[in-house]
Amino acid sequence: MSNPIDPQWKRHFAGRTVGMKASAIRELLAITAQPDVISFAGGLPANEALPVEEVAVATENVLRKYGPAALQYGETEGFAPLREQIAEGYRERGMHVNAANILLISGSQQGLDMLGRVLIDERDTILVECPTYVGALQAWQSIAPTYASLATDEDGVIVSEMATQPPFKLAYVIPNFQNPSGRTLSAERREQLVDAIHARSALIIEDDPYGELRYSGQPIPSLVEIEARRFGADWNAKGRVIYLGTFSKTLAPGLRVGWVLAPEPLIRMLTMAKQGIDLHTSTLTQMIVLELLNDHTLEHNLPRLRDLYRLRRDTMLSALDQDFGALATWTHPDGGLFLWMRLMGDLDTAQLLVQALTHKVAYVPGAAFYVNPDVNNGGKNELRLNFSSMPPARIQEGIYRLAALVAEQAHVNTP
Amino acid sequence: MSNPIDPQWKRHFAGRTVGMKASAIRELLAITAQPDVISFAGGLPANEALPVEEVAVATENVLRKYGPAALQYGETEGFAPLREQIAEGYRERGMHVNAANILLISGSQQGLDMLGRVLIDERDTILVECPTYVGALQAWQSIAPTYASLATDEDGVIVSEMATQPPFKLAYVIPNFQNPSGRTLSAERREQLVDAIHARSALIIEDDPYGELRYSGQPIPSLVEIEARRFGADWNAKGRVIYLGTFSKTLAPGLRVGWVLAPEPLIRMLTMAKQGIDLHTSTLTQMIVLELLNDHTLEHNLPRLRDLYRLRRDTMLSALDQDFGALATWTHPDGGLFLWMRLMGDLDTAQLLVQALTHKVAYVPGAAFYVNPDVNNGGKNELRLNFSSMPPARIQEGIYRLAALVAEQAHVNTP
Repeated sequence: MSNPIDPQWKRHFAGRTVGMKASAIRELLAITAQPDVISFAGGLPANEALPVEEVAVATENVLRKYGPAALQYGETEGFAPLREQIAEGYRERGMHVNAANILLISGSQQGLDMLGRVLIDERDTILVECPTYVGALQAWQSIAPTYASLATDEDGVIVSEMATQPPFKLAYVIPNFQNPSGRTLSAERREQLVDAIHARSALIIEDDPYGELRYSGQPIPSLVEIEARRFGADWNAKGRVIYLGTFSKTLAPGLRVGWVLAPEPLIRMLTMAKQGIDLHTSTLTQMIVLELLNDHTLEHNLPRLRDLYRLRRDTMLSALDQDFGALATWTHPDGGLFLWMRLMGDLDTAQLLVQALTHKVAYVPGAAFYVNPDVNNGGKNELRLNFSSMPPARIQEGIYRLAALVAEQAHVNTP
Repeated sequence: MSNPIDPQWKRHFAGRTVGMKASAIRELLAITAQPDVISFAGGLPANEALPVEEVAVATENVLRKYGPAALQYGETEGFAPLREQIAEGYRERGMHVNAANILLISGSQQGLDMLGRVLIDERDTILVECPTYVGALQAWQSIAPTYASLATDEDGVIVSEMATQPPFKLAYVIPNFQNPSGRTLSAERREQLVDAIHARSALIIEDDPYGELRYSGQPIPSLVEIEARRFGADWNAKGRVIYLGTFSKTLAPGLRVGWVLAPEPLIRMLTMAKQGIDLHTSTLTQMIVLELLNDHTLEHNLPRLRDLYRLRRDTMLSALDQDFGALATWTHPDGGLFLWMRLMGDLDTAQLLVQALTHKVAYVPGAAFYVNPDVNNGGKNELRLNFSSMPPARIQEGIYRLAALVAEQAHVNTP
């Protein structure tokens, strides 16, 4: 579905819809839903990791405990005991945070949308990684901000190069196992990034859907943790890091529950916006999430998830070593769901996808993740591979098919 | 909480947040959450009408039937079998509608927000009833459209007066048991309204949360039904009515599931917008709703709901007759959750509320529902009463307290 805009309706649509288009990822997901396709295109948790039985028990408990309140309208800020529990988790890490710093939202995609609405004006400059999460670009598409690229290397954003950036309103980063690159921002650079944002009187959105999914290496404090520890009780007044968390990758995306952690003035503004946007996030699914925290489902699920995904990551990395050799380079993520690949030579991954699909293997071409066609050739010869949703044997088969295709095409292109 | 904008943060906020403010209704809900307050302020379904046991059974069935798919990411358009089932309901009423005309959303408030985003530009003229649903005004607050008032009487919008309106982009109406007035648009006027919209090449949003909650009188076809029947198979090309439906009032608001019924070109545009907004509505709650349709919970619940609310409406109307007499006039709704009252004399219902709260009774003052201070004195001496959430004895007591207060104040004002 290419979603062309109907000419009859064109005059009815608002100006901000100009340039709105369906996401490449989404169109791909439609194609790759066929069961015989080995899809590295999506960003789905493994079906076998979803806590079906636990949600059944939790829902029964929630409805018994809370009765009609579980089905009734709720507060815009979110279910108070869940906000309190999330805040308590931060306090245990030494941060001065309370429930008033937490807004519950319908997945962190809603957080990106809401932050765009309350923070970004047309032509404001937003700094993003190159490549960056395509869903953030989509959330802000109708606002039409100006994007500037943050230079990155294997350790994430090169903060020292921010000094040469023109003024900007906010920076958007995914410090842990970035989507799509799989890269992690180093501890040292995180400290520098917090400094740099304060020096420039800007804001930073720290999007962290994968932080709990680390398979190797040591955990690194989040930007918000660094900043909140630095300011202590003054964080509410001085903090400029906005953190997005979600239960989509650790419990279940179908519940649509995430949160914003931010200084109170911003939480208040976001709450006002959310009143008009959807009143509040589902009462029932928020209560289910709280129950899954209290009955230790999350705690027990995380090690299982990490083991499952670690094996899949390692399987993919081994298969790449074996089948691709010198045909490409790729990242070696310590966690998350994705790795990033650059093909040697002059291949266009968007064109290559058409052939890949005839070989029943799918990925996402790199271009969608770039705001700047001048950086890395706009991602033309790059692609994103998801390693979480396919079992190991399918991963091996898929990488084999993909490598064969790339080898064939590289041969065609270099006669 | 008056939500003042923090001066430190002011420069970070986008221009569109100027004028954003917390809703009067919401601030009231906070006050009236105290259990000793008799609140006619909210718009909540009765707790005793919420199908707690049925949702427990439905959730168990959903998780057994669909397994991990119930917790996984879903399509932006919504869960396909639920879209199909909703479309089938329309086909049974003789409308050429299919699943491609249905977008599932997180409650109809999300529909109002999304329609604003894809249809309304700053300064576009929107026609609204006076009074109108405050949540629609809040959804469109950051867009800053221009509002024009539709003149209304006991039969709803006086369509013949639309001829004198300047050009407008769209009209927003709640034809059944309107929030806040409780009035219903007559059958004849509905036909005229569809004609008028087509004559003016405009659009109409038909918001219908209460249509299934009729306690007296005969059902009247919805605007979308009239239009779709008129155009038959051409409705997709020629239709200009956008219908918002919800399960919040017939099943449970805490599930946050509603739908848009509209011609396909608009559904496609809304779907693209929803990708950036929140990816999709909760998979689990959509599946629960489908289960509650298939196991006949909705069908069995509706007559019980109607009986419950009819009794409460009648109790309130009798109490008003008995206690208010000539102190006020009020509407006599055939359904829904609200009635509307105009106090005699020069009382300001916003000021009166402060005293009402000391007498532990609450309502919503009229002014919040008006876009035009010149119509009916901007609702200054009007107020909205909800009759669905309090049991009959509390309704009688609350109306008694309110009437005593109004009598006392009317006396003070006319010495």
